[in-house]
Amino acid sequence: MALRGFFGPQSATGRSSLIPEPPWHYSGDLITIEYRTDPARVRELLPDSLDLAEQDPGAVALIWADWQSCSDSREELLDPVRSQYKEAFVVVRCQYQGQTYSRCVYIWVDKDFAIARGLHQGYPKKLGSIHMTRPHPYGPAPRIEAGARFGATLAAADRRLAQAVITLREPAETNGFVNGHPMAHNRRLPAIAKGEGPAFDELIESGAASFEGGTPWSADADVSVFEAPTEELARLEIHELIGAYYRQVGVTWDGGRLLERTAP
Amino acid sequence: MALRGFFGPQSATGRSSLIPEPPWHYSGDLITIEYRTDPARVRELLPDSLDLAEQDPGAVALIWADWQSCSDSREELLDPVRSQYKEAFVVVRCQYQGQTYSRCVYIWVDKDFAIARGLHQGYPKKLGSIHMTRPHPYGPAPRIEAGARFGATLAAADRRLAQAVITLREPAETNGFVNGHPMAHNRRLPAIAKGEGPAFDELIESGAASFEGGTPWSADADVSVFEAPTEELARLEIHELIGAYYRQVGVTWDGGRLLERTAP
Amino acid sequence: MALRGFFGPQSATGRSSLIPEPPWHYSGDLITIEYRTDPARVRELLPDSLDLAEQDPGAVALIWADWQSCSDSREELLDPVRSQYKEAFVVVRCQYQGQTYSRCVYIWVDKDFAIARGLHQGYPKKLGSIHMTRPHPYGPAPRIEAGARFGATLAAADRRLAQAVITLREPAETNGFVNGHPMAHNRRLPAIAKGEGPAFDELIESGAASFEGGTPWSADADVSVFEAPTEELARLEIHELIGAYYRQVGVTWDGGRLLERTAP
Amino acid sequence: MALRGFFGPQSATGRSSLIPEPPWHYSGDLITIEYRTDPARVRELLPDSLDLAEQDPGAVALIWADWQSCSDSREELLDPVRSQYKEAFVVVRCQYQGQTYSRCVYIWVDKDFAIARGLHQGYPKKLGSIHMTRPHPYGPAPRIEAGARFGATLAAADRRLAQAVITLREPAETNGFVNGHPMAHNRRLPAIAKGEGPAFDELIESGAASFEGGTPWSADADVSVFEAPTEELARLEIHELIGAYYRQVGVTWDGGRLLERTAP
Repeated sequence: MALRGFFGPQSATGRSSLIPEPPWHYSGDLITIEYRTDPARVRELLPDSLDLAEQDPGAVALIWADWQSCSDSREELLDPVRSQYKEAFVVVRCQYQGQTYSRCVYIWVDKDFAIARGLHQGYPKKLGSIHMTRPHPYGPAPRIEAGARFGATLAAADRRLAQAVITLREPAETNGFVNGHPMAHNRRLPAIAKGEGPAFDELIESGAASFEGGTPWSADADVSVFEAPTEELARLEIHELIGAYYRQVGVTWDGGRLLERTAP
Repeated sequence: MALRGFFGPQSATGRSSLIPEPPWHYSGDLITIEYRTDPARVRELLPDSLDLAEQDPGAVALIWADWQSCSDSREELLDPVRSQYKEAFVVVRCQYQGQTYSRCVYIWVDKDFAIARGLHQGYPKKLGSIHMTRPHPYGPAPRIEAGARFGATLAAADRRLAQAVITLREPAETNGFVNGHPMAHNRRLPAIAKGEGPAFDELIESGAASFEGGTPWSADADVSVFEAPTEELARLEIHELIGAYYRQVGVTWDGGRLLERTAP
Repeated sequence: MALRGFFGPQSATGRSSLIPEPPWHYSGDLITIEYRTDPARVRELLPDSLDLAEQDPGAVALIWADWQSCSDSREELLDPVRSQYKEAFVVVRCQYQGQTYSRCVYIWVDKDFAIARGLHQGYPKKLGSIHMTRPHPYGPAPRIEAGARFGATLAAADRRLAQAVITLREPAETNGFVNGHPMAHNRRLPAIAKGEGPAFDELIESGAASFEGGTPWSADADVSVFEAPTEELARLEIHELIGAYYRQVGVTWDGGRLLERTAP
Repeated sequence: MALRGFFGPQSATGRSSLIPEPPWHYSGDLITIEYRTDPARVRELLPDSLDLAEQDPGAVALIWADWQSCSDSREELLDPVRSQYKEAFVVVRCQYQGQTYSRCVYIWVDKDFAIARGLHQGYPKKLGSIHMTRPHPYGPAPRIEAGARFGATLAAADRRLAQAVITLREPAETNGFVNGHPMAHNRRLPAIAKGEGPAFDELIESGAASFEGGTPWSADADVSVFEAPTEELARLEIHELIGAYYRQVGVTWDGGRLLERTAP
């Protein structure tokens, strides 16, 4: 009898799997802050198989997201401890065979199923504590309108790593360009035997299978990143702010494609 | 020099206080489930100074709330770890000097500032893990519309205590009647000396200083409460469902008034 | 029928009470770091009813503790989510009617029952994330012996507030003097009506009803405190290190006594 | 320039890696409960490449562990949020090419670095909330001696999954036999393209590179497992208790070896 389950733990029924089979559907709010850093600091985070993007190679997007996600069954939405999570992540751009890609270089989430999906998709996930102001139609929380202010914070291992406050300005065409390409990610596992290289390393491409979204808003931003012993987010120094954005979106992810097996 | 701070820890500046001075402003979403239990189980949760409500004395409201709250400065909204919290609570009705009051008999929250506000307001707060499906305009999460389904769960000390799924039916006049009166709460502290009665016990009245809210929605509900060694929520057995509701609200709380000093 | 329960929520059985009736028994490990700060910074944390200690008035103890606690029933020990907690706290000394007392001015814990006990005992508790290296007889963790190193950290609201590393030197007579007196604490509740002073404020004395402990060890220490928007620990600047200590203890707390009703 | 870091996120320095390079060193306490279930329930959790153990094929070990772990640098021990974690896991036995192996079929941990190490070692880790009574030389917590009682609990997604209380009886030869063989684990990653089989699946063997431990104690046990929508621990029904054990250990893990590439 075959073991079932998209991910571990596998079992006879597949019911224990930490994550269900794709497609995975998401509803969420995004705060995006784009800035320029030294392109050398971006380059040093890319594997040899990738090059810097030709235009604006030092552009970085620091993104916070507040998600509700589910499988095709939608059942996770009704037991929301299995559906809701927040994340903060850092995206740069790169080139592969003449195409421009986005690439997530750091990411923190607050649930295990989000970590596992990241392993599948090539996002290098850690646990963090992530908070974002949420829009609300009543009371003191902001509406999505000019002048509205939203805060966003990230901590891991009991240290604050980043924080931002954005102030909405006006409706915009996009919510940025750095995270606007298909993702080029590596999925990699070290060999179990000590001292050997990776047992598995492949470069994959993936992106949304479908997307809907509200009007993006441009924003002014005040953003800080902080040092920590096991993090290098602050090494992507903020030289110049490009823009900031707020947007509500609905996304479906349904797999990607192999670009290249890179090891062994 | 006087110590400052609305609550402990007090200091020269007052900046360390776990909670700021009222008014406290709230934006939030409420799931309310009303049901009838044995009125004797309600009566046994009331102090001698209060009587059962005359009408429908066994009515209980089990309420989940997802809040963002702040002081007049609004600064907590921009560091949302200090603003956002969720709670689940149980409200019954009672009578004091011929007036009908609401009274919270059990409540769980997920932040310390919420615990401290509860101590001030007479809510008997514990920590819990609370989750509620949130409405969203895009993707798989529900809109606020007929047929939309929302889940709500409560756990404490690593045990699930309650869970519900509601399905919105239609716009309604109210979001229930059990939690619709001013609150009659006791604020009580045991004597520091062993074996003495309370050092302080007073019955207070409090309610919203201002309120705004969206259209309430009535809903069908599927709700369960579970046993736990240190909880008695399941003792308020669900004999008959009265109704279920969803509503988004904005509320300000700005103090209450003393009804009666009850001890010592 | 009278409501039962040492603390809220009260019920017919008393079983829901967030904390059981004293005595409360504790097993735990303590890291104590004593230093001198500007005595004016200590004075500003004392109410008018208390004076600075005559000797070494600027002495401060920064203490981490890793506890297992229980009631007389011992049942909490067997469901350890209800028994285990960690705390970090700051103690200064003061004088009342010619007697020297210890006084906790800031304290963070990681469980709700510890918050509630603090409210009863006059400790101004907040939630925090507290970690301490634990001694262990096997593997890489330290034994309690010369040269052993222990780390201790404190965070709240996703910011690190303090951290220390101590290196054990030799057995010592005590584990410090700042936290060695009976505690003089205020138990205080603001009036429910806006703008009035405290509804209740009393100065109480309390201490251990019984105590046993292992040999204290003196230690070298490297300690840092950090700024945060809602904390003033860093205002107690470290001018000079007095000493550092490690000790394992068993303690019982069984009530205190009223010194003075200070308000209203 | 090559990317560095044993695990993701990789960087120029390798400092961001969620886990350091092995060896990994551990100090910890183990509660082991062994019981018999229907061997068919064990068989259905094994891949085709493995067979049931010949002797006592329905034997299951349910193990709780309270760890402090570190790399060769030992630095994690001094920032204990990066070192301490707890886990609960289920081990069965199996056969591969005539050799008996242990195999972990379910495991919950409470830190991200433990999840990542599990991915490397083939443990199918999820996040959980795990608690164990700790021995202590003073106060109410147990010493390691006859009659001492320890509790252990496991929850995930806000539901309690298992709980046990053991009572120490006497020193023993071992702390069980089910987890006493080298581990035979699969390391598996689904293909990024939808609907394809695994992109990577290999059977590996691994075990401790070095081990030291205190005297094991045998114990009586009272243990329960509970149903949950996304867990199948309760499917391994407890038909007969074999034994229970308490032991303190020090372990080093330093890699394993490939047994067989099983896919693609």
